[in-house]
Amino acid sequence: MKALVLEEKRKLSLREIDIVQQMGPSDVRIRIARVGICGSDVHYYTHGKIGPFIVSEPMVLGHEAAGTIIEVGAEVTHLRVGDRVCMEPGIPDMSSKASRAGHYNLDPSVRFWATPPIHGCLTPQVIHPAAFTFKLPDHVSFTEGAMVEPFAVGMQAATKARLQPGDTAVVVGSGPIGIMVALAALAGGAARVIVADLAAEKLAIAAQYDGIIPVNIRETPLVEKVAELTGGWGAEAVFEASGSPKAFSNIMEFVAPAGVLILVGMPIEPVSFDVVRAQSKEIRIETVFRYANMYEKAIALIASGKVNLHPLLSHTFPFEESIPAFERAAEGRPADIKLQIELEAR
Amino acid sequence: MKALVLEEKRKLSLREIDIVQQMGPSDVRIRIARVGICGSDVHYYTHGKIGPFIVSEPMVLGHEAAGTIIEVGAEVTHLRVGDRVCMEPGIPDMSSKASRAGHYNLDPSVRFWATPPIHGCLTPQVIHPAAFTFKLPDHVSFTEGAMVEPFAVGMQAATKARLQPGDTAVVVGSGPIGIMVALAALAGGAARVIVADLAAEKLAIAAQYDGIIPVNIRETPLVEKVAELTGGWGAEAVFEASGSPKAFSNIMEFVAPAGVLILVGMPIEPVSFDVVRAQSKEIRIETVFRYANMYEKAIALIASGKVNLHPLLSHTFPFEESIPAFERAAEGRPADIKLQIELEAR
Amino acid sequence: MKALVLEEKRKLSLREIDIVQQMGPSDVRIRIARVGICGSDVHYYTHGKIGPFIVSEPMVLGHEAAGTIIEVGAEVTHLRVGDRVCMEPGIPDMSSKASRAGHYNLDPSVRFWATPPIHGCLTPQVIHPAAFTFKLPDHVSFTEGAMVEPFAVGMQAATKARLQPGDTAVVVGSGPIGIMVALAALAGGAARVIVADLAAEKLAIAAQYDGIIPVNIRETPLVEKVAELTGGWGAEAVFEASGSPKAFSNIMEFVAPAGVLILVGMPIEPVSFDVVRAQSKEIRIETVFRYANMYEKAIALIASGKVNLHPLLSHTFPFEESIPAFERAAEGRPADIKLQIELEAR
Amino acid sequence: MKALVLEEKRKLSLREIDIVQQMGPSDVRIRIARVGICGSDVHYYTHGKIGPFIVSEPMVLGHEAAGTIIEVGAEVTHLRVGDRVCMEPGIPDMSSKASRAGHYNLDPSVRFWATPPIHGCLTPQVIHPAAFTFKLPDHVSFTEGAMVEPFAVGMQAATKARLQPGDTAVVVGSGPIGIMVALAALAGGAARVIVADLAAEKLAIAAQYDGIIPVNIRETPLVEKVAELTGGWGAEAVFEASGSPKAFSNIMEFVAPAGVLILVGMPIEPVSFDVVRAQSKEIRIETVFRYANMYEKAIALIASGKVNLHPLLSHTFPFEESIPAFERAAEGRPADIKLQIELEAR
Repeated sequence: MKALVLEEKRKLSLREIDIVQQMGPSDVRIRIARVGICGSDVHYYTHGKIGPFIVSEPMVLGHEAAGTIIEVGAEVTHLRVGDRVCMEPGIPDMSSKASRAGHYNLDPSVRFWATPPIHGCLTPQVIHPAAFTFKLPDHVSFTEGAMVEPFAVGMQAATKARLQPGDTAVVVGSGPIGIMVALAALAGGAARVIVADLAAEKLAIAAQYDGIIPVNIRETPLVEKVAELTGGWGAEAVFEASGSPKAFSNIMEFVAPAGVLILVGMPIEPVSFDVVRAQSKEIRIETVFRYANMYEKAIALIASGKVNLHPLLSHTFPFEESIPAFERAAEGRPADIKLQIELEAR
Repeated sequence: MKALVLEEKRKLSLREIDIVQQMGPSDVRIRIARVGICGSDVHYYTHGKIGPFIVSEPMVLGHEAAGTIIEVGAEVTHLRVGDRVCMEPGIPDMSSKASRAGHYNLDPSVRFWATPPIHGCLTPQVIHPAAFTFKLPDHVSFTEGAMVEPFAVGMQAATKARLQPGDTAVVVGSGPIGIMVALAALAGGAARVIVADLAAEKLAIAAQYDGIIPVNIRETPLVEKVAELTGGWGAEAVFEASGSPKAFSNIMEFVAPAGVLILVGMPIEPVSFDVVRAQSKEIRIETVFRYANMYEKAIALIASGKVNLHPLLSHTFPFEESIPAFERAAEGRPADIKLQIELEAR
Repeated sequence: MKALVLEEKRKLSLREIDIVQQMGPSDVRIRIARVGICGSDVHYYTHGKIGPFIVSEPMVLGHEAAGTIIEVGAEVTHLRVGDRVCMEPGIPDMSSKASRAGHYNLDPSVRFWATPPIHGCLTPQVIHPAAFTFKLPDHVSFTEGAMVEPFAVGMQAATKARLQPGDTAVVVGSGPIGIMVALAALAGGAARVIVADLAAEKLAIAAQYDGIIPVNIRETPLVEKVAELTGGWGAEAVFEASGSPKAFSNIMEFVAPAGVLILVGMPIEPVSFDVVRAQSKEIRIETVFRYANMYEKAIALIASGKVNLHPLLSHTFPFEESIPAFERAAEGRPADIKLQIELEAR
Repeated sequence: MKALVLEEKRKLSLREIDIVQQMGPSDVRIRIARVGICGSDVHYYTHGKIGPFIVSEPMVLGHEAAGTIIEVGAEVTHLRVGDRVCMEPGIPDMSSKASRAGHYNLDPSVRFWATPPIHGCLTPQVIHPAAFTFKLPDHVSFTEGAMVEPFAVGMQAATKARLQPGDTAVVVGSGPIGIMVALAALAGGAARVIVADLAAEKLAIAAQYDGIIPVNIRETPLVEKVAELTGGWGAEAVFEASGSPKAFSNIMEFVAPAGVLILVGMPIEPVSFDVVRAQSKEIRIETVFRYANMYEKAIALIASGKVNLHPLLSHTFPFEESIPAFERAAEGRPADIKLQIELEAR
């Protein structure tokens, strides 16, 4: 089968590759329609590794996908051939201790698309467990379906925040994940979300949404802005989605008493953490690792119209142009929120 | 001061009454602009009592109010003369055990407007603790301000549901409280809210809102409709807002496994409760009594545009027509969601 | 293999039976040492059914078991031959929606020992998934190991109560489950547990434990006792473990404001439920169905000595006397908290 | 009135001082019996300040107290002359936003004993709000009563951990607060608590308690010990109670997946925090600032015998020897868990 293969750091091929996979009775076979490019795909391309995960042999990229069911295992009951679907890219051991407790995202034995040595889905067909394959309503596009994966990260963050209706939220970072978090927080109860970034182009995209208040921190100190908007109380939920260690220097100052700080961004180095300042307001801190049990709820929000992901699509490339697509993604243009590759139109 | 006085059951006067009240250093004096008519006001008018609360001497009615600050006590810091405000009608003992734990709505010594023997606010001026008086942003109308009180009940219900973003909710009952609950649930994370009633007129008002799916249970069995919309899983949150004992006959059937049933409506008689059916899905049941700490969050949702209460205003009466207003309210017209009395225009 | 077989209602045999079972790579084979007799086993014996579950062909009884691993599947890593273990009797589909969310007890396709048509474990050997088989520390006896199953029900109830350290709890019903609940509540944070029953013999067994305050409701009104012990505030957590509809008549009266009522007992008929009374204190109600993720925590409490189940063992019968054991269990002697059958001594 | 006065840094007097206080209708007057010496009292003595709180004029020390009611305000209903009591040392504004939400400990206007410029209670009599004065049962000693304050810190930590019955906990630091945390965690659901310290004398005191497993980290790496005791899973709750920045270097490694880290100790400088490691297990972090709503629950645990604080009393000094008591406290002897000053025997 043809696939976008990362041969090694900085070297991509669109070529035939032999992927050994067998349909089991609980699996489905999916014809891939759309795949989004994620920062982690790009990082494997540019660096050949992420932390302990090293690309030591050719690996198919891609894990944000939507497509159509073309075969169904004997025991599958909730999906049929022809269903349009999106897929969770991680396959956990559902009998592990973490999975039994509902935290299957924390199972260390999870097999996750495009995380070495597991192949991704930038290829015309994949086999996947039906339990991690989710039907898209007719009016939800493949574009949106392929964005459910990054949106699920925002959903996990908003869910862990345990927002109350009417809360004020802050999101630090207006990249793809930051905006996904902001949309999930708005859908999840926030009356308004203050989104902060240094890049005007990124903020302009966030600012299209009702309820998002963009703050360019080159111009306006975020602490002051949050104080002004909340009468000095602070935001009930602050999401760190930039991964920048600098964000931690004063982040406690705009969290409200008894508020929550949710850490979504992944700073490469340990950060400096002022424990006493957090204690003085009894701030709770939550951390996020991918997602669990979020796809159906994410699809429900897209389907009902509460969340509109289309404005986040920056450009679509045909499958044949997968390599130029990755080259552009590697440029890191500020206005490129989401690039997708199309294998089958709709 | 002139006031709408319930002299006794079925007898109202709009007359001068002597209300002894003293400004304390933490109080504000408010010129009342708008007062909504609540079902409990009407019930005192038509029945002279609610449960153990009996109108045994003349009592001013009204507890849903907005107005303008005209005097500020010496120790008040967050409000100024001229501020447009709305007020929580209950004044608890903030040193009580319930209040110390954050449940000031459960303090049995609470003094609540228009609950015998406490006078209500259908009168040109009131004195109120600043701590329970909340500033309205400039673009929030008195009409909306006077609806914060019933909306706060919906907020309490939606908050207690602990909705996750993307949940499906059901609200049984499309009266004023049912719709308030539905709007709070939508703002608080529900992807969609199925609102059920017998009265087409009431459902038509609910159906104006994006995200609300009306179900006329004269025509469509609610159990079937919820099953259809949720693939047989059920709704993660079901709000009982009708107070009808009949609603309890099969209400467990459309709650999802591990879902929640929130009891907002107040059935006069004990209802029949199938414990084993609730256990088989480990349903959690929450009960709601007024609200605590909801006003600021309610105002934030109205101010940000996430919640629009204007469609719920059915008619406004001038203060001089307070008695006809109550007579109409007592008729119980299905399309009358909220009637208000205007003391001062804006 | 020999087994205690319920041929039909009221007819038991201790006989050879052919049970078709195959070791899978994730399974273990266990030599059964001890099996406790549960009320449900007895109910199948005396009534031939429980609700919709009907014994229509011969079925091996028993689901509270401990034993020794005698064979280990190829993929099992956390257990070895010779390990002493106890087992969760339910085998869910871990890929179901409920299981993925951590509620595997709510998966409707669960296969549960001694629930028709699934055979139980009153037989010398069983094959079981390693994921639902839990190692017993050396100093935990088979007697205790076979009591982990009913104790897990108490653990589920105490966990759902979300007790805070220092809470006062009430348990209505001093049968086996009531006492298990009381012990879990004590271990889980309650400063004291008031246990109520009509039977002095049952209360005498509960009263052996420090922290349990027995109340014979033939002699003392429970409402008054709770009020006296809590200064009129009520108990933060009330567990209904009798299944008696009468218990519901005034149970809200001794729950504290913002307290929780946990429904463990299973009344055959719907009960009468005073919604308004529950609302006036914003009582939360939780319901319990078996347990999920409780075995390891239950074993930890037994192993550390915080929970001592030995006083609950009333009598042990050899396997050969299984039928007399069930006959005695069917007598329902008040002082018989737990009867066990021994297949292998320790 | 005579009092122990901190005149300035390093200078104590036991002398007459004029304290202006007036009995209000909701106050009680208490004859002080016992006062414990807290680390903060000692820090004001040795350093003249704690963070922004500077002793700029003479201040009475002491905030951990028990005594006897000798006068009761007109509106006080739950206390009588002769009641033996202990007191919360902080008096918040109960109408503040934080207090209304149940977080009165986070009200910035709180007046807290022996925190400049507020006088403490090392003096024969104090006036205090009845709402923050709690009756001691007859069999609870003044010694224990004066330890409720530091124990309440442990209770706040254990409550915020939201322990499930049977969890394994780790407490880093075996000082007075570390041990109080460990006892609250044991009472609050932990099956066992691993307490870690460098000082053998401190660990010896902790080791007296059933359920506490002492680990001298000079000898045994804590990561290895926790892994061994939990089968590699980690502890569901880890309490940092040392305030040592070094503790943060590897503290994430022994928290279980989806576990919680509770920060009780107050490191003077910001610490280094590995966000990605915390995320990989979705660790939740809670922070603690004093306590709210803990006194009654703390007293309940002491009264029922579940928590025994007597082993933590190292020495008692008569009031006349208050200055030598502080000199000894300032020595920081490892085995001195709690020193108390007696004003009235019992």
